[in-house]
Amino acid sequence: MLPAVIAPSILSADFARLGEEVDKVLAAGADWVHFDVMDNHYVPNLTIGPLVCEALRGHGVTAPIDVHLMVEPVDRIVPDFARAGATLISFHPEASRHVHRTVQLIRGEGCRAGLVLNPATPVDVLDYVLEDLDLVLLMSVNPGFGGQAFIPSALDKLRRVRERIDASGREIRLEIDGGVKPDNIGAIAAAGADTFVAGSAIFGQPDYAEVISRMRRAIAADAA
Amino acid sequence: MLPAVIAPSILSADFARLGEEVDKVLAAGADWVHFDVMDNHYVPNLTIGPLVCEALRGHGVTAPIDVHLMVEPVDRIVPDFARAGATLISFHPEASRHVHRTVQLIRGEGCRAGLVLNPATPVDVLDYVLEDLDLVLLMSVNPGFGGQAFIPSALDKLRRVRERIDASGREIRLEIDGGVKPDNIGAIAAAGADTFVAGSAIFGQPDYAEVISRMRRAIAADAA
Amino acid sequence: MLPAVIAPSILSADFARLGEEVDKVLAAGADWVHFDVMDNHYVPNLTIGPLVCEALRGHGVTAPIDVHLMVEPVDRIVPDFARAGATLISFHPEASRHVHRTVQLIRGEGCRAGLVLNPATPVDVLDYVLEDLDLVLLMSVNPGFGGQAFIPSALDKLRRVRERIDASGREIRLEIDGGVKPDNIGAIAAAGADTFVAGSAIFGQPDYAEVISRMRRAIAADAA
Amino acid sequence: MLPAVIAPSILSADFARLGEEVDKVLAAGADWVHFDVMDNHYVPNLTIGPLVCEALRGHGVTAPIDVHLMVEPVDRIVPDFARAGATLISFHPEASRHVHRTVQLIRGEGCRAGLVLNPATPVDVLDYVLEDLDLVLLMSVNPGFGGQAFIPSALDKLRRVRERIDASGREIRLEIDGGVKPDNIGAIAAAGADTFVAGSAIFGQPDYAEVISRMRRAIAADAA
Amino acid sequence: MLPAVIAPSILSADFARLGEEVDKVLAAGADWVHFDVMDNHYVPNLTIGPLVCEALRGHGVTAPIDVHLMVEPVDRIVPDFARAGATLISFHPEASRHVHRTVQLIRGEGCRAGLVLNPATPVDVLDYVLEDLDLVLLMSVNPGFGGQAFIPSALDKLRRVRERIDASGREIRLEIDGGVKPDNIGAIAAAGADTFVAGSAIFGQPDYAEVISRMRRAIAADAA
Amino acid sequence: MLPAVIAPSILSADFARLGEEVDKVLAAGADWVHFDVMDNHYVPNLTIGPLVCEALRGHGVTAPIDVHLMVEPVDRIVPDFARAGATLISFHPEASRHVHRTVQLIRGEGCRAGLVLNPATPVDVLDYVLEDLDLVLLMSVNPGFGGQAFIPSALDKLRRVRERIDASGREIRLEIDGGVKPDNIGAIAAAGADTFVAGSAIFGQPDYAEVISRMRRAIAADAA
Repeated sequence: MLPAVIAPSILSADFARLGEEVDKVLAAGADWVHFDVMDNHYVPNLTIGPLVCEALRGHGVTAPIDVHLMVEPVDRIVPDFARAGATLISFHPEASRHVHRTVQLIRGEGCRAGLVLNPATPVDVLDYVLEDLDLVLLMSVNPGFGGQAFIPSALDKLRRVRERIDASGREIRLEIDGGVKPDNIGAIAAAGADTFVAGSAIFGQPDYAEVISRMRRAIAADAA
Repeated sequence: MLPAVIAPSILSADFARLGEEVDKVLAAGADWVHFDVMDNHYVPNLTIGPLVCEALRGHGVTAPIDVHLMVEPVDRIVPDFARAGATLISFHPEASRHVHRTVQLIRGEGCRAGLVLNPATPVDVLDYVLEDLDLVLLMSVNPGFGGQAFIPSALDKLRRVRERIDASGREIRLEIDGGVKPDNIGAIAAAGADTFVAGSAIFGQPDYAEVISRMRRAIAADAA
Repeated sequence: MLPAVIAPSILSADFARLGEEVDKVLAAGADWVHFDVMDNHYVPNLTIGPLVCEALRGHGVTAPIDVHLMVEPVDRIVPDFARAGATLISFHPEASRHVHRTVQLIRGEGCRAGLVLNPATPVDVLDYVLEDLDLVLLMSVNPGFGGQAFIPSALDKLRRVRERIDASGREIRLEIDGGVKPDNIGAIAAAGADTFVAGSAIFGQPDYAEVISRMRRAIAADAA
Repeated sequence: MLPAVIAPSILSADFARLGEEVDKVLAAGADWVHFDVMDNHYVPNLTIGPLVCEALRGHGVTAPIDVHLMVEPVDRIVPDFARAGATLISFHPEASRHVHRTVQLIRGEGCRAGLVLNPATPVDVLDYVLEDLDLVLLMSVNPGFGGQAFIPSALDKLRRVRERIDASGREIRLEIDGGVKPDNIGAIAAAGADTFVAGSAIFGQPDYAEVISRMRRAIAADAA
Repeated sequence: MLPAVIAPSILSADFARLGEEVDKVLAAGADWVHFDVMDNHYVPNLTIGPLVCEALRGHGVTAPIDVHLMVEPVDRIVPDFARAGATLISFHPEASRHVHRTVQLIRGEGCRAGLVLNPATPVDVLDYVLEDLDLVLLMSVNPGFGGQAFIPSALDKLRRVRERIDASGREIRLEIDGGVKPDNIGAIAAAGADTFVAGSAIFGQPDYAEVISRMRRAIAADAA
Repeated sequence: MLPAVIAPSILSADFARLGEEVDKVLAAGADWVHFDVMDNHYVPNLTIGPLVCEALRGHGVTAPIDVHLMVEPVDRIVPDFARAGATLISFHPEASRHVHRTVQLIRGEGCRAGLVLNPATPVDVLDYVLEDLDLVLLMSVNPGFGGQAFIPSALDKLRRVRERIDASGREIRLEIDGGVKPDNIGAIAAAGADTFVAGSAIFGQPDYAEVISRMRRAIAADAA
């Protein structure tokens, strides 16, 4: 199993002083910057695009930027994010007619590629593409809609995807996004996740370092 | 003629410290904050959505926020921007099947409504809706594409729309966006514009106040 | 000027006993049955399709059925409505890439063809197609949205389209739809309309004959 | 196994006197009213929308109304049908980007939720959403196209979905729609269906009660 | 007035020996090769793409290739046709959200740019873009549908566009496409066209040279 | 196992003399003509449509024409290709909302029907439709994009689909398209393919007969 990665979602940060927020959460122990892109078509919301990613790089952020594209179609915007400094780019299989090709495109642009499964998406979408991926992201809430709790069936899905990743013998991260908090992160890690997105659970707290280390302890306790 | 308004486009600001940038440009004499929303469908780019607008209000910005929607369709996102603190919301007539209805929707949400004309859009789209508008925005470059110069035919279009606004007897602002700089802003004002969007012409300069006052002097000189 | 036609919109009738409602309103003096088709794409509502039209014919309705298509695209459903017994079929120019061709298609199916202008649609969409039309329908509310009042600028648009129809020397009906009531129908007729759609103004009243004859008197008074 | 439900599809009723038809078929022993909504996009036909559903409730119908949405996208129209009195709302997974979220939306509006599988849709679309459903509807003809016979492979699919429902331990109805008649309904019930849609097989007969009781006898005989 | 250009549409040629057909029609006196591209979206037909254009260049064709894009959207395919050897590229304004920008794109790729007006399209779409064009193409039939005769109102439209072109003082070609034959080409030229597309009127005849010279004589007679 | 079929893709032929090219490749031993249709929507390219198919039949080609539709939606163009002389018509399941119905449509038009799986498409799309098919086409490159090598995971997918076809007991061809060459065709045949598309591997060689017989020898060697 790969070392755990904590990836705070900047959608919950203060956009008026985003550079400072990101500096602070990284200093508090976060590993990656999770970057949620919504286009008002794949999901009913519109958030942030490549120029915000580029601004973070211009501000001096060197941590991996983990871009989750909730957009449709996907291919046109991939090179924009690569140029803007994205490290990983993940997308939804329903949003691309040519899933294998989109994975090649992301890699051809020098980024790592991920596939994202919505809560109801069956895992067989991975059958012929898993070996080309660097990351699988399972949504434990519905992307683009606010105020949702962790969907319990995601634990079972984590276990099934974990088995497939292990069987592949490849170094593929298994990320979870939606309703992740210090009090359920242990069970989530036990089910097989190694990469954890959290939004308000981190940015909504006064002390980022405290919540991140609580998360790490819960993950470690579970591993023990 | 209404007093001139300078509306810097925050797309050219530093997104890592946006609150500070906006504070600074307003302190330097800008009147409005111009807010360009792109959805990767109406234009091939994706920029910023309601949560960035909301962050500016949360940061304490009280100046009018002038939202230009380069999105399609329009109606679903209007209430989101109203809730996020938009003052004006403008949209493109090709992007809404029901232009009159979208204007009513914007006003019903408590905002002022604008219509935006692309460089090649004929002015007769205003024929039966001008009297319901608070603002007409003429694009003097193609929205969503970088690196373009002011399109000269926009001056003639400004003159024709200015005549229509004057004939209506209503207080409707005439805004121009694209390639506006201190050295052409006088001619643009002379053609009838009273509201001026500028991006890199302001944010790309070391001294925002100096460029804004140069713009105001050019406008005033022309009026004289 | 053609004799006035009253066309009650069956959207306001009781759908549990539609045949009876239509019989009753025709017996009360209505001329045409106005049939509003919405597809949840061109407008955010879905109403009734060809099988309801066919049921009216099967029930014995022989009056003209005046189908207003608020659908997009248009062409596929035209033959269905022709087969279902439509007399006139009108559509919105924004909803067909090939307006002249759609007019020919409607006529080729044996129906009369109309074009519908939304409140903000300029009248120059008629420039090269008016002579091929049997009817122009001006919307005086936004189609597909409830609870709206008659938009006053529709009177001016009626006058401009009336001039064009008269100049063409052809027998083209000028229909109005939205907020038409006994107390404004005189002014609407004076502005040039000869065909009047009314929904709740008729079906919402206890005595259909009384309201229809009040409408006719108001139209006649205006003509005098 | 839940008690059998007969759900006549009102698409085959006489729309000129729909209230009377529905009263009659319920008096003849039908359990639910099956309500087929087509939008001319998901399927190439347009049928009936919320206002017809509302008219049935206004007419006094108290039986469950079982709405099958052959529309795309789904979410916008769900609240309209809930307000119009729908009891169950079913949709196609290909027609919603966010299947789990649409199920929550339907339930949040106070209705029961169903998922519909087209003849060629694999059953693994149920993998992570079955437990949130009240109903699975298998199409045994292609929806939206007329004159088709029962597709035999639907029997095998019924058996596979029946096993999954039984394994879930939940009370989930298994409905079948397309080509159901008295002479095949026994075999269909034997394969696992407990809810039966029939259109012309009921409304095309002179005596609704006779055909419905023939159906019930065939179901019961099979169960024996 | 520019010298007349005859542009045979290769859609009417024999595609099994296209190089030979094109050689033959050019030897018979044709000036340009007219190349009709349909995508089964903007029009309900699919014809030929860039690889056929490229094959003609590979075959040794040096005459101007006049590409008429009946596709939507437009921009993605423009560079493909430029690389494939197109000389002129024309498109429909309804098919591009950014008409001015598409014109710049075509010119930036080294081609000449044209705008195409459908039979019902008003001429004011030219108001702010005419001066950037090399060609205006008026459709005198509906593009993408077979078996249509020349629409007479196209003559009036030719006269109006001819006036605008002359008033501009620029060298802009005025092309006509649809139902052009030796017996109406004189009247069409008299109305202002200088560039003439003909399909079966040329390729359907045994002697291409004879029909082309009949066309030229009719044009010259009219000019006299 | 059915006898091997070699199906050269005419996309790699010289379009200026297509009839001659096709005659030559058939004389060299090819069995079918593979015909790749792209619409610039399902894939980012536009190739050839029904009129080219019709020209081949008019030229005297009697071999089976194997049409691969990379278009979306599918149904409207199926009858056009049937009329143009197609023998087989294959389509992508993501491109049709009603896969079973599209198969029936193709067969109803007198053609054989195929389903095409993209590199990442799971094989369970075949679960309820395999028995209605005449052909399954596996893509071993991403359709519509040039310059790709054979994707190795296609071999495993061939084996899994071969098992299903054999289990069905039906005569269903298993076709492969993408990067097929004399030096890998043996392994591809061993994995279960019986129908082989090749483009530049054949048309890019000076001697079509030589490469085709090398392919046949490799297939036979593998079978031995």
